[in-house]
Amino acid sequence: MTATDTDLAAKGRARIAWIRSRMPLLAQARAAFAATQPFAGHRIGMSLHLEPKTAVLLETLAAGGAEIIATGNFGSTQDDTVAALREAGMTVFGSRADTLEQHAGNIRAVLDGAPDILLDNGADLAAGIVERGTQASIIGGTEETTSGADRLRGELARTVSFPIVVINDSRLKAIGENRHAVGQSIVESFMRITNLMVPGRHVVVVGYGWCGRGIAQYFRSLGAQVGVVELDVMKAFEAALDGFRVASLTELAGWADVLITATGRERVVAGDVFDLLRDDVVLGNSGHFPWEIDVATLRADASSIDQVDDGIERIHRPNGRSVVLLAGGRMFNLAGREPKGNSLESMDLGFLLQALSLERIATDAGGLFPGAQPVPDDIERFIAARFVEAMGAAR
Amino acid sequence: MTATDTDLAAKGRARIAWIRSRMPLLAQARAAFAATQPFAGHRIGMSLHLEPKTAVLLETLAAGGAEIIATGNFGSTQDDTVAALREAGMTVFGSRADTLEQHAGNIRAVLDGAPDILLDNGADLAAGIVERGTQASIIGGTEETTSGADRLRGELARTVSFPIVVINDSRLKAIGENRHAVGQSIVESFMRITNLMVPGRHVVVVGYGWCGRGIAQYFRSLGAQVGVVELDVMKAFEAALDGFRVASLTELAGWADVLITATGRERVVAGDVFDLLRDDVVLGNSGHFPWEIDVATLRADASSIDQVDDGIERIHRPNGRSVVLLAGGRMFNLAGREPKGNSLESMDLGFLLQALSLERIATDAGGLFPGAQPVPDDIERFIAARFVEAMGAAR
Amino acid sequence: MTATDTDLAAKGRARIAWIRSRMPLLAQARAAFAATQPFAGHRIGMSLHLEPKTAVLLETLAAGGAEIIATGNFGSTQDDTVAALREAGMTVFGSRADTLEQHAGNIRAVLDGAPDILLDNGADLAAGIVERGTQASIIGGTEETTSGADRLRGELARTVSFPIVVINDSRLKAIGENRHAVGQSIVESFMRITNLMVPGRHVVVVGYGWCGRGIAQYFRSLGAQVGVVELDVMKAFEAALDGFRVASLTELAGWADVLITATGRERVVAGDVFDLLRDDVVLGNSGHFPWEIDVATLRADASSIDQVDDGIERIHRPNGRSVVLLAGGRMFNLAGREPKGNSLESMDLGFLLQALSLERIATDAGGLFPGAQPVPDDIERFIAARFVEAMGAAR
Amino acid sequence: MTATDTDLAAKGRARIAWIRSRMPLLAQARAAFAATQPFAGHRIGMSLHLEPKTAVLLETLAAGGAEIIATGNFGSTQDDTVAALREAGMTVFGSRADTLEQHAGNIRAVLDGAPDILLDNGADLAAGIVERGTQASIIGGTEETTSGADRLRGELARTVSFPIVVINDSRLKAIGENRHAVGQSIVESFMRITNLMVPGRHVVVVGYGWCGRGIAQYFRSLGAQVGVVELDVMKAFEAALDGFRVASLTELAGWADVLITATGRERVVAGDVFDLLRDDVVLGNSGHFPWEIDVATLRADASSIDQVDDGIERIHRPNGRSVVLLAGGRMFNLAGREPKGNSLESMDLGFLLQALSLERIATDAGGLFPGAQPVPDDIERFIAARFVEAMGAAR
Repeated sequence: MTATDTDLAAKGRARIAWIRSRMPLLAQARAAFAATQPFAGHRIGMSLHLEPKTAVLLETLAAGGAEIIATGNFGSTQDDTVAALREAGMTVFGSRADTLEQHAGNIRAVLDGAPDILLDNGADLAAGIVERGTQASIIGGTEETTSGADRLRGELARTVSFPIVVINDSRLKAIGENRHAVGQSIVESFMRITNLMVPGRHVVVVGYGWCGRGIAQYFRSLGAQVGVVELDVMKAFEAALDGFRVASLTELAGWADVLITATGRERVVAGDVFDLLRDDVVLGNSGHFPWEIDVATLRADASSIDQVDDGIERIHRPNGRSVVLLAGGRMFNLAGREPKGNSLESMDLGFLLQALSLERIATDAGGLFPGAQPVPDDIERFIAARFVEAMGAAR
Repeated sequence: MTATDTDLAAKGRARIAWIRSRMPLLAQARAAFAATQPFAGHRIGMSLHLEPKTAVLLETLAAGGAEIIATGNFGSTQDDTVAALREAGMTVFGSRADTLEQHAGNIRAVLDGAPDILLDNGADLAAGIVERGTQASIIGGTEETTSGADRLRGELARTVSFPIVVINDSRLKAIGENRHAVGQSIVESFMRITNLMVPGRHVVVVGYGWCGRGIAQYFRSLGAQVGVVELDVMKAFEAALDGFRVASLTELAGWADVLITATGRERVVAGDVFDLLRDDVVLGNSGHFPWEIDVATLRADASSIDQVDDGIERIHRPNGRSVVLLAGGRMFNLAGREPKGNSLESMDLGFLLQALSLERIATDAGGLFPGAQPVPDDIERFIAARFVEAMGAAR
Repeated sequence: MTATDTDLAAKGRARIAWIRSRMPLLAQARAAFAATQPFAGHRIGMSLHLEPKTAVLLETLAAGGAEIIATGNFGSTQDDTVAALREAGMTVFGSRADTLEQHAGNIRAVLDGAPDILLDNGADLAAGIVERGTQASIIGGTEETTSGADRLRGELARTVSFPIVVINDSRLKAIGENRHAVGQSIVESFMRITNLMVPGRHVVVVGYGWCGRGIAQYFRSLGAQVGVVELDVMKAFEAALDGFRVASLTELAGWADVLITATGRERVVAGDVFDLLRDDVVLGNSGHFPWEIDVATLRADASSIDQVDDGIERIHRPNGRSVVLLAGGRMFNLAGREPKGNSLESMDLGFLLQALSLERIATDAGGLFPGAQPVPDDIERFIAARFVEAMGAAR
Repeated sequence: MTATDTDLAAKGRARIAWIRSRMPLLAQARAAFAATQPFAGHRIGMSLHLEPKTAVLLETLAAGGAEIIATGNFGSTQDDTVAALREAGMTVFGSRADTLEQHAGNIRAVLDGAPDILLDNGADLAAGIVERGTQASIIGGTEETTSGADRLRGELARTVSFPIVVINDSRLKAIGENRHAVGQSIVESFMRITNLMVPGRHVVVVGYGWCGRGIAQYFRSLGAQVGVVELDVMKAFEAALDGFRVASLTELAGWADVLITATGRERVVAGDVFDLLRDDVVLGNSGHFPWEIDVATLRADASSIDQVDDGIERIHRPNGRSVVLLAGGRMFNLAGREPKGNSLESMDLGFLLQALSLERIATDAGGLFPGAQPVPDDIERFIAARFVEAMGAAR
């Protein structure tokens, strides 16, 4: 290990230490796993963002006897976290600077390590296993994302013979993460990035799913006047009774000071809508994919573009008005300098879903059915109870 | 018709006129039915509360060509409404003063009138049909309540050969009525009956279902500090993230200034809990059945009881403390002088669910399956859209 | 005493007992006064609404050794309260049925009783004393209202030689009563009288003083969208930052589903404004005087008027639209059947201000200056502390 | 000018451009001043934070014909802003790296430039003028802070012969900045720095002045349970009616997950209070001075201290528990990487108070009296109206 690696590892350890100290649910699991060793003799192959919160999950699995072979997502790997994990004896591939080709190599390297349990993201590992035809070597795994679940239920449905628990289908996650943590994170990031006042502002939220609901509620509670655009009439009904101004995007576009997409759909803010916007409206997207705002067209049509601050650009439109675009249309709660992302507690919740689902795979894979499936109900209920306790809700 | 009947009818008509004027969804249906006459040639037998809001539903069905034979629930029939309906040409049995025996006779009288469509409540009419063995005469119907649905899915499941749409299963009702309208009605009734200050008060809501959620939210929004008791950990998790103090009834009983049950279960506030309560705590129930607070024991053990105001009694306990009981443990949003019940808009919503489900029965019973079933999805969505429009949510 | 009087007194006693039991601050004062007898040898002449809450104040003064000679306001005297007070040994003049002439006689009768301390309302007693030229017989008093204070500082300023503490100038009252209690009372009365849904409704509050602020806040917290009309730019600024839609009445008149006046000024909703209103808008006034909505013109111009329910009339306008007027333009939180008025706790607060100010008069009138003056600061602070304790705010 | 200066200036210009574009009130003033040239022939000497928002104020004064001689506060000068201002032709002294001695020299240099109007901060310039005995050369000025106002009304009261308008006494600032902007900034900074979840957390706010009120309200609106500690009973009364849990610090210390000081007083959280805190409580200060939390004692007593993240340290106490301290006890809304401080709109408001007060000095100093005084009422009202317009509150 070089001096630089040692320094990096030290920096990584310090950041991980703080985060670990505020993840009480994983701490409980770590203590339990240390006693029961559910992963003894198992090797977990992982593909997930390599950042300090993930490190606390990996430590927890390792405490339960797991051997870890891990890589990250493309572009989000944090080198100090990697150094700290390697120092702790895990096999970790990847660095922030990796090319797409190197990233593909990392995925292969994880599979070459012959894991028998997968902690997957986007079904990358599962697809690799299917390609190799080595399904029999896997007893099961977890999948973090909805898009991975879609692949598992689509193209991979027939060929995946082992159980995969889909973490993102969890109702706990819908409430704890999508609604509350994303709502908090979006309103925090709006204030952090723009430095604009919230009370009295007209904020239009497009989409009233779990995320949109949280965003609308958090903005209103800080004093904004909030409009909601929602095509599904049942959700629109709910939004109207929740007291929001509910109308079409055409009706609300010219009323908005701030417009935030949370639909998951492509090109929601596009075409004629741009011409309806007020001068200097702030546009941001909270959805996973960067396609809800048609940024390409905005830029192509621009008379000029100012990069005004980290995560903010002002695009001057041919009609003489401008648009203030956050994070280039990507999730703006991950934009700006040092964004923190979802709250530590919500990540603690999400990662305990991972840890206990993996424990179930390791100890009782036979009790699950092959293919994608929700988190077992008893695990959801167990975690709900632990979370309420950890919040000290009874005090 | 006697002079008294004419007077009563006039009084009934005046009250109905106001309510009708604030039920825009039924007005739309009335206009549509007048043109399409979906009930022409049909006779609807009804058993439902006979009060002015129901009258607007009946008028709407009559406008669609239905012949109406109706009776009310035991004890809630309003004589001026009956007079007005009779004057309008409907066959109506029952009066406020009816005995239980007379009420049973009214149900029989409705069935003797040979309806082919039922608008039922508690499955009273359906059970009568099964008893008579005249199922073949009925093309279908609706059931208002959950307890009626339970009978239809239980003891009557095998013998009911016609489709029954269960209104109370509707998601629109869950949100529009159980959450919002009951929440509003409970907080209004608390203020109306007790004349006590809400801000700063410690209010404990037992049960975090649709109703409990609304009650907790409405009290908090008026400045109360709100605790929630909920046995289901998934709902308790939601309550904790919604920011409520979540604990067991044992822990919260001594903290409460006001304690409201919304569980649907028997004897929730009973036994040892009584000894934990603070002096002069206000106890009220919002659930359908008057069994959530063990009033019988409270009264039996009382050292004395003061009837302090309409809908309020103070029960002095052997431990030297007292309890202020609302409405004798019955739903207190129907207590006190001239309670109004759920908002007109929410009743408009619920009754449009009735009207359109009955229309479906009359025009396309073959498209439904036998037995209890939810409101057809297209009807829910149609009403959701109309409701949002009628709220003028887009303004 | 006749049998009827005894019955009336019994009814009065029962209602007073409940109210007394929920006025803990006056209970503390009663206990203290019983020991210290601050009013021993004094006769208090009172002119104030004779209803059960006032009775608890009078008892408290009597417990401190005061002899009471009392009458009520014109038209609001409750006969059972009078009966109960007489039974308790007080001299009380007046009944609900009194004519204006009889009322004037009651005021004279109070003064004929030769009180040395006044508990005044509208400066009626003070004006009588000045007229008689018997100022020297009075050591001081209190005045409940702002309009009484205006007289004391205006026409009576030169001739009132004794100190008068003006209760309504209290900052505690501004917050505890005008903002919170009136806000609660107005939103409760709106729901109670109209039975309309609050969430999603467009409510316009005209006037953003203490009352308007409370009304706007309470409606919004129940889910209404709230607009504010305020001519004073400093208050309009505050309303805008508080997140309300702030605009002129002309701009908001057509947006309102409900419009409530809280300005204290005459003819605020009048003239051309009527033509801007949407069909069937609900109009109500919360201000002390019934002149904020120009009801006379509304009625004079009406094509027809329906009395639709207690406290509600629908006025059909020549433009084909209608207006739903609450309480004929009088304070609608005192309208409908059995309105309760401000919360018991807020009345407890206001009456303790009375009781302790009168005690100060009785024991240290020399420490005050002649004429109208605010409640002594130490009394305000003492009561604030007691109120916070009584709320159990520390729990 | 060196190449580096040019680069710095370019960076400064870009940041200033964005901020300028979101300060519409100063833009209006700039346009007006350009036409009326109120500062023609005047030289304004300034001592205020040299950062991009201030730059927009200085540009505005320059547009009105002012010659500017400026320096910053100790330690907060941003070099790119300085470079941009110099490029724009202003005389600016100071850099981030300045020692205290150099800072004193900068103040002297501003005075050596012979300004006739002062834009002062902490009364540094006024004190220098008094020391030099050159009061006659000054026609008047403004003072930004309360601590400066205290000096002007204290030690400098007799010797300051020219009018000084104290900006911080403004009621607009109290509402727009202290309550709303600080409340927003504190809640944003808490989330940004700690990455902790807000809903359900127990947050104790010590002090219920303008700032504390905003902080309490913003945390509660995001779902926290909020307790308030306030020694002034009148404010405690208000907090209790606003629905907060009000108790002593001794009572609430052990309940808090997060404890924030906003009192302005020294050593509020100190001594025995530390022993009452729960393990790992988060402590932060929002008051101007870093003395509310007794950090020196905390550190002196610590068994060890971890620097866990930017703006966060964990202090391990002898009792085995730890404390998470934000920003070392300094205002934590200015801590962490790239804190943004109060919202652009609130700074626009505060700086328009500066600009119009300085205009009044330049054009009508005779209409003011000597010494410290509030912002003229007509200026407050003018700005209130402009702010409401700029918010587009009427839409």
